[in-house]
Amino acid sequence: MPDPAPGRKPKWAVEKDRARKAGPEPVWLFGLHAVRDALLNPRREKRRLIVTLNAADRLGEAIAASGLEPEMSDARRFAAPLDPQSVHQGAALEVLPLDWGRLEDLADPGGEASRLVLLDRVTDPHNVGAIMRSAEVFGARAVIAPRHHAAPETGALAKSASGALERQPYLRVRNLGDAMLELANMGYTLIGLDGQAEMDLRDAAKHSSGMPAAIVLGAEGPGLRARTRALCTTLARITPAGEFGSLNVSNAAAVALSEMRQ
Amino acid sequence: MPDPAPGRKPKWAVEKDRARKAGPEPVWLFGLHAVRDALLNPRREKRRLIVTLNAADRLGEAIAASGLEPEMSDARRFAAPLDPQSVHQGAALEVLPLDWGRLEDLADPGGEASRLVLLDRVTDPHNVGAIMRSAEVFGARAVIAPRHHAAPETGALAKSASGALERQPYLRVRNLGDAMLELANMGYTLIGLDGQAEMDLRDAAKHSSGMPAAIVLGAEGPGLRARTRALCTTLARITPAGEFGSLNVSNAAAVALSEMRQ
Repeated sequence: MPDPAPGRKPKWAVEKDRARKAGPEPVWLFGLHAVRDALLNPRREKRRLIVTLNAADRLGEAIAASGLEPEMSDARRFAAPLDPQSVHQGAALEVLPLDWGRLEDLADPGGEASRLVLLDRVTDPHNVGAIMRSAEVFGARAVIAPRHHAAPETGALAKSASGALERQPYLRVRNLGDAMLELANMGYTLIGLDGQAEMDLRDAAKHSSGMPAAIVLGAEGPGLRARTRALCTTLARITPAGEFGSLNVSNAAAVALSEMRQ
Repeated sequence: MPDPAPGRKPKWAVEKDRARKAGPEPVWLFGLHAVRDALLNPRREKRRLIVTLNAADRLGEAIAASGLEPEMSDARRFAAPLDPQSVHQGAALEVLPLDWGRLEDLADPGGEASRLVLLDRVTDPHNVGAIMRSAEVFGARAVIAPRHHAAPETGALAKSASGALERQPYLRVRNLGDAMLELANMGYTLIGLDGQAEMDLRDAAKHSSGMPAAIVLGAEGPGLRARTRALCTTLARITPAGEFGSLNVSNAAAVALSEMRQ
């Protein structure tokens, strides 16, 4: 790569600066449930709402509450820039990602046995959406993932999260390992799920009873990365009944959160 | 509709007869994991195998064990008749659905505290695939669904099931309500998951400890149908920590199976 002219920033750095100044990229949410919950969320910055007549009717109260002027569209040639596979149900809303603040504030246990979910390169939006729902149901403080190599806050994630994305913090951190160190300093027990571990998850959950604890999950296949694994307080597994079998990652998260419930 | 000629069957009845005589429709499985596990399953009737050079290499042992002659195909114009969205990884296998036999044999508790999963119109193949994995991990005897209005045994289900479809019975019954009556007669406690129930799932699981028990799940949104609900021994819910929230159906199944584990 040629050296940039002296005193001038290279092109990638200029672009990075511009992206940072421009702030987060807007995303399109879709589907009646996801759009309704976002419309009703006062913390959500909303840009444009595109709806069919039928969806406008079903979202009437939420649209009125939001103060947005809906743009009407035909169901057969729906005007929102969505993936053609998206089951939008005639409703699409352009929004900014939610700002969940800083890890040290969000995760501060403050004397409580708070619960967290840490995701190490779990990129499938359907799995992360389902995990958001489980985190909400089992009262976890937040789902934490790295800024890169994670499922971005998109319409597909929002739809799978079925409203939970509006209420359940999904915090993206610069570096997951550094976040784990910070959490350990706050007193968290970090329980990594690993099919090769010797300890059963039930025992690990019992040991962390009454204390702040986070469950750490890797992507299916590669599992936890070496540094993530090394930074866990303990590794545990959901012991299969037979010789074969492993859980889908969102199912594993749900079981873990249920076991760690206070 | 005009009356058929006397002594002649109407066209729909003739077609129904023909379909029954022809037996079950073959399906295309795809993806390295699903294809490998099907190739290695001696109970699986296999028809055609289409692979890329790379996939043939990675599946070498399984192909040899199956005795099938693979048809080689180019990755860019993959010859198997799959949905273009399918992540086939260069491997597709045409098979017949597995025959899991009869409910009375498969579910017969035989003095054990056996576990079952009943699905009332859960049609999403990704959810059913994840449920198959959880059923296997937590040692359930079978996943039982009605013949109609259920996720068919397709490649998408097999891929989500990640091998579990080869080992974990997925039994389709003519009528779910009749199957529930039969299971109740065999001594099963039928625990229906219902967000409006008063009893918490943990208590229901405790009550069924040491006895045959089935968890009954409905589709998201509509939930359990009226007859299904009426035929449950008890209804229970996974109590949310806060005001909002519900679990994805496969996550709910995993939590229930974990709670009901012996």
